Amino acid sequence: MKNLLVIGGSDAGISAALRARELDAAVDIQVLVADRFPSFSICGIPYFLSGEVSSSEDLAHRTRAEIEARRIRLLLEHEAERFDPAQKSVRARSPTGETLQLAYDRLVLATGAKPVHPPLSGMDLPGVFPLRRMGDALAVDRFMEEREVRRAVIVGGGYLGLEMAESLTRCGIAVTLVENAPTVLGTLDPDLGERVAAELARNGVEVLTSTMVEAIAPIEGHALGVLATGNVGRPAQLVLVAVGAAPETGLAREAGLATGIKGAIKVDRHMRTSDADVFAAGDCVETWHRVIGDCGYLPLGTTAHKQGRIAGENAVGADRQYAGSLGTQVVRVFELVAARTGLNDADARAAGLESVSAEAESWDHKVYYPGASKLRVRITGERTTGRLLGAQILGRYGAEVSKRIDILATALYQGMSVADVIDLDLSYAPPLSNPWDPVQTAAQAWQAERDRRAAAA
Amino acid sequence: MKNLLVIGGSDAGISAALRARELDAAVDIQVLVADRFPSFSICGIPYFLSGEVSSSEDLAHRTRAEIEARRIRLLLEHEAERFDPAQKSVRARSPTGETLQLAYDRLVLATGAKPVHPPLSGMDLPGVFPLRRMGDALAVDRFMEEREVRRAVIVGGGYLGLEMAESLTRCGIAVTLVENAPTVLGTLDPDLGERVAAELARNGVEVLTSTMVEAIAPIEGHALGVLATGNVGRPAQLVLVAVGAAPETGLAREAGLATGIKGAIKVDRHMRTSDADVFAAGDCVETWHRVIGDCGYLPLGTTAHKQGRIAGENAVGADRQYAGSLGTQVVRVFELVAARTGLNDADARAAGLESVSAEAESWDHKVYYPGASKLRVRITGERTTGRLLGAQILGRYGAEVSKRIDILATALYQGMSVADVIDLDLSYAPPLSNPWDPVQTAAQAWQAERDRRAAAA
Repeated sequence: MKNLLVIGGSDAGISAALRARELDAAVDIQVLVADRFPSFSICGIPYFLSGEVSSSEDLAHRTRAEIEARRIRLLLEHEAERFDPAQKSVRARSPTGETLQLAYDRLVLATGAKPVHPPLSGMDLPGVFPLRRMGDALAVDRFMEEREVRRAVIVGGGYLGLEMAESLTRCGIAVTLVENAPTVLGTLDPDLGERVAAELARNGVEVLTSTMVEAIAPIEGHALGVLATGNVGRPAQLVLVAVGAAPETGLAREAGLATGIKGAIKVDRHMRTSDADVFAAGDCVETWHRVIGDCGYLPLGTTAHKQGRIAGENAVGADRQYAGSLGTQVVRVFELVAARTGLNDADARAAGLESVSAEAESWDHKVYYPGASKLRVRITGERTTGRLLGAQILGRYGAEVSKRIDILATALYQGMSVADVIDLDLSYAPPLSNPWDPVQTAAQAWQAERDRRAAAA
Repeated sequence: MKNLLVIGGSDAGISAALRARELDAAVDIQVLVADRFPSFSICGIPYFLSGEVSSSEDLAHRTRAEIEARRIRLLLEHEAERFDPAQKSVRARSPTGETLQLAYDRLVLATGAKPVHPPLSGMDLPGVFPLRRMGDALAVDRFMEEREVRRAVIVGGGYLGLEMAESLTRCGIAVTLVENAPTVLGTLDPDLGERVAAELARNGVEVLTSTMVEAIAPIEGHALGVLATGNVGRPAQLVLVAVGAAPETGLAREAGLATGIKGAIKVDRHMRTSDADVFAAGDCVETWHRVIGDCGYLPLGTTAHKQGRIAGENAVGADRQYAGSLGTQVVRVFELVAARTGLNDADARAAGLESVSAEAESWDHKVYYPGASKLRVRITGERTTGRLLGAQILGRYGAEVSKRIDILATALYQGMSVADVIDLDLSYAPPLSNPWDPVQTAAQAWQAERDRRAAAA
């Protein structure tokens, strides 16, 4: 094992390269990066566009210099065109148009995902942007500097759509958010999604749910007309399309690697593809879900970092398993934080599990201490076994929502029961929590609800 | 089982009564409360004395009316004088001096702890107060209203001493904190204790460590002179003594119940004493430590609530085990939050375990997003097995220190390895965390440190 080649310079690829170097001082490591932005935090794009992050350079998880200091060769703006598993070689094109042939002993594919383009006319008009890569962010930033954007339409009410709604509102732009589904943030229960939509509305965002954008057309001046179901029409100078991501797997498919759900590359829990010398990680692969015990497509930065680390580790000869995702996510929308981990009732039903959910609303810390706010913690557990299946939390920014969902994610990781959550020895001081943390109060409510149903049955 | 009698109206006693009622609608429940304050949060005393909590009434976890609405009879200001396990009866004295005989089928002892009085002269002078019970807090409050307190000395640099130092400083009082040990907050590693002391000093508190108060004497006017080792003398109008708590077990000993560490009542993991019909919980009992696998004396509110709940549950016929304490604690000292769970190196050594500790300093959330601050996360693990043993975190108020220690407490509860912590699927968004949460970065640092030591050996 002399040459490790990584295709992809975002979270998974850079994590793989760095971890391989940590474990193997001798191996030759090269990373093909399609653009000029190795290790950039695409999760930071909304905060760059809002101006809260002043320079796009600040979005780098690690700078080019930090990476290169570890003797990792970055080939920036090099497009991988094809790879040949039999020859163990990759053909790439340099920024000046030259063709390179790069040999590898082990390859890590970390080609990421591309934004889904919905089938509507006008997607290629000036002022209409997908938003996934750093290049997209810079294009939007340039556009907003050159044009006066007063109104924007965001297509898609997922995490990125919500963050961008806040971001553009902070720039003084009037924002309309359009979502097909009956509520935004479809990864939460609908009534919680409605609370998130209410927070957007409270901050001046027009939220149109159960509404599908059908066309974008140029209108007078530089404006665009966005037409949607229900006779909805909105003028806008800027339209952002954030309706999801699809795995970028052209190279893998051409090379004959096995693919699966949504076309993502199939990997085993060692992040090994159907070719024993090719590993893959991040938004281009199927991801093992630890609670469901099966694969899904879960493109998330946290997952990409972990999978990349394991791919890098195993590529240089280790034997580590990816522990699996719990689908843990958090988003801040203005003053509200919404978090989830594991399964809600709908997910449990889809996985063939019989679930019970219960909720408790509790103060984030002792109500007598100034600044307390209410948290809504909803717990989902398996009815028959009492096993914790998942949780959702809504609360105010500053109320430790994010790390509270992580308490439950940690319990979930270990397959704990809801009753076990009540027994946890968690920290308490009046300015910080309650003698029973809100996650425990919710676990108690879950037990009571399960007992109530058992008694009623 | 008709009559449940509880002696003690604080966290453990009220929790026992409430839980018994939840499970048994018919049982007769009476609680003997020595003072007028059932279910008062004694952890809130510092915030009441600082004026951040305006009324002492607000410190009640549950109001008298809430408790009584559950058909729990509260006998306030009733002192339990003696109980007779053979007759299953308790003798109590009412506020008017009458003697009552109360029969029980099951008894829960929740008599709490009393403040330790150090052996120094002047402890009974006006202006010198222990601080443990609501009555103490009200006495101090009254004293501060009646006298002009400009300078105060706090004896003891534990959690309560530190919180009181902040509390009195907020009242504009010049505070000197005196601690025997070389650092404050002896439950943390000494260098972390020093950082806490620095935060106190930064806020104007004079911190004298390795200093023992030897005498308190009246000086001219209403002032007191506090004399300590090293020729230290400080004038003060108020002296608070907070050097620890000792279990209140007079009743239990007179009745012949078995006692153990520091004189605390011996209980099994069902919270049952040496008398099968007598349960005990909270600050008066020995507590099972889940990591050490043995009992210790750990008087904490969180523990009292959990033990009380289990005592109440088992007293009405259930069969629940107390899961054990991890010694999880958190304190806010001005802008700093210090938290711990499980064992540090000194604890591990005392428990006969060979430990390795490592630390990582990381931003609480992506540094590019405004408001990021550094967290110091120290992980202790068992060298041979890689098992997580404990953790300590220091960080800024608002940086989710409290719920981050809880992630590690949850991992610890389940006996996870440090390596498992790296695999956890924790939540991330740029304003809230990093793709690797700081607790995971520390776990990675721990692995590197362990590998380094293995290579050096």
